[in-house]
Amino acid sequence: LWWEGTAGSGTLHLLDQRLLPAREVWTQFQSVDEVARAISDMVVRGAPAIGVSAAYGMVLAARSGGGLAAARDVLARTRPTAINLFWALDRMRRVAHGGGDASPERLLDEARRIHEEDAQGNRRMGELLAARIAPGASVLTHCNAGALATGGFGTALSGIFVAHEQGKKVHVFVDETRPRLQGARLTAWELERAGVPYTLICDNMAASLMARRKVQLCVTGADRIAANGDAANKIGTYSVAVNAAHHRVPFIVAAPLSTFDLATASGQEIPIEERAGGEVTEWGAERTCPGRAQVFNPGFDVTPASLITAIVTERGEISPVDGPHIARMMAGA
Amino acid sequence: LWWEGTAGSGTLHLLDQRLLPAREVWTQFQSVDEVARAISDMVVRGAPAIGVSAAYGMVLAARSGGGLAAARDVLARTRPTAINLFWALDRMRRVAHGGGDASPERLLDEARRIHEEDAQGNRRMGELLAARIAPGASVLTHCNAGALATGGFGTALSGIFVAHEQGKKVHVFVDETRPRLQGARLTAWELERAGVPYTLICDNMAASLMARRKVQLCVTGADRIAANGDAANKIGTYSVAVNAAHHRVPFIVAAPLSTFDLATASGQEIPIEERAGGEVTEWGAERTCPGRAQVFNPGFDVTPASLITAIVTERGEISPVDGPHIARMMAGA
Repeated sequence: LWWEGTAGSGTLHLLDQRLLPAREVWTQFQSVDEVARAISDMVVRGAPAIGVSAAYGMVLAARSGGGLAAARDVLARTRPTAINLFWALDRMRRVAHGGGDASPERLLDEARRIHEEDAQGNRRMGELLAARIAPGASVLTHCNAGALATGGFGTALSGIFVAHEQGKKVHVFVDETRPRLQGARLTAWELERAGVPYTLICDNMAASLMARRKVQLCVTGADRIAANGDAANKIGTYSVAVNAAHHRVPFIVAAPLSTFDLATASGQEIPIEERAGGEVTEWGAERTCPGRAQVFNPGFDVTPASLITAIVTERGEISPVDGPHIARMMAGA
Repeated sequence: LWWEGTAGSGTLHLLDQRLLPAREVWTQFQSVDEVARAISDMVVRGAPAIGVSAAYGMVLAARSGGGLAAARDVLARTRPTAINLFWALDRMRRVAHGGGDASPERLLDEARRIHEEDAQGNRRMGELLAARIAPGASVLTHCNAGALATGGFGTALSGIFVAHEQGKKVHVFVDETRPRLQGARLTAWELERAGVPYTLICDNMAASLMARRKVQLCVTGADRIAANGDAANKIGTYSVAVNAAHHRVPFIVAAPLSTFDLATASGQEIPIEERAGGEVTEWGAERTCPGRAQVFNPGFDVTPASLITAIVTERGEISPVDGPHIARMMAGA
């Protein structure tokens, strides 16, 4: 994901993640409505990447002369769970309101700062995470928390990339991540490009691997972390965490500080997006279940803090995961 | 699944389960090699149904004049995990060796007895299981352990059908069951035909439902149960059991006595079939991951006895699940 050109005439480029790994198609965006639709339709997904894309969307809104408040509303309605979206929109709002100058140039500067900070944070998270990966270890991950999900090279995957660079011979078990297969489509694609050895599994095979002691570490991203450390992430993450606890495998969440929502006391208050049933019942033109089937399709689940060994942020590790330790990290202490 | 006609000229009819729910195609089988291929290719699946089909396959072998020992070998090589296959072949062998008369007629009598006993056992299991289902309860099941998997109306699903007949207003959460989607394709199809309300979910959503207290009971079938009560079943069952234990939801296995393998001390000794990676990576003509992806695709996993609340058999319930209680039940005490 990148911005090309000036605030006045530039464009946001997004790699259409729905088409990977079969095709690499980049699309250019010139209006905030198009960006909002790209987020809703998951052309771009991953909490930090959604935040960065929305920030660039505000630049497009400003230069079209449309109202910034209306643009914020359109973007805020796209996906309810990822808090980074609202965090990025708040940063853009502060710039707009700061000195009255909401010029596209100033907004683009801020969007670029958000993007650049995210990328730098990824690198720092990667170094912290890599320190937890022993040479020859196998790491299990769920969904995609790599370059496609962020403004840099990833949250959960950052540590894997750094460990790989360090010659640690890390191996990755990739949950395919039903229903949209972000693991099979996106994480596998990123790992293959980086030359990191990996094995694709169905989500329901992770427990079996842990029972065979094939997994030394689980790491995922997060879409929103409550003040007490409960973490919302892609549906299926919670099952990984329960199984990791049962098998005494460390379960790590990697997320920038922009993922924390101190206004939300616990995971029970995090809104969970429910998505269309067709994501579960349809494969291209084929329907895999009877026509009248009811479907439950939450996009996310919540892993309680008690099951999270540590949260790795760009400022350091939070462990144990609880309210006081989170508050201290957020305060920069 | 049914046998039509005499031993001398009859045929085995199998509903091709690979085509459900889109199409209901019945295929007739006239040779043991065809039956063996149907089992390997999962035209018919489900441990008890495999056993019954193999028994009828032996009738076809006998009337063609081929050697029965060779026919047994062909059938025994089809799928290694389900013990009911070997149990049914043993029963057929005993008939063949009993008095020297291995006529197709005598073999058909025995195959029909195996079939009929399985159906009767389903009914008794159904009554025992239904007693565990409270009115208005939601039951989660994995894979398909219904009429399509047995000689009757099911093992795990039997209790749901009986509870439904009793007017208990049972609701079923159906794990889609990756990679082959037996839940979405087969269990949903059976429940819809029976008028039982159900909701289809991806396997990785079960934990989330349990956390929301939406599941009161988990019930699955089994492909082989070791002497100590460890139970092999469709991949993903173990993850359900771990999550059920974590959320204090009872986890019940329903299986006829023919599923027990007292010669196998524990689950670690149960052979686990590994299937082709294409089951995970391909959807019809579409490949959902990069071309070089390695895949791990075990067909089954093992749930330790310690996570199983009870095993329901046609002779009664085994609880707690351990070696002595299993031995007592098998001895008919």
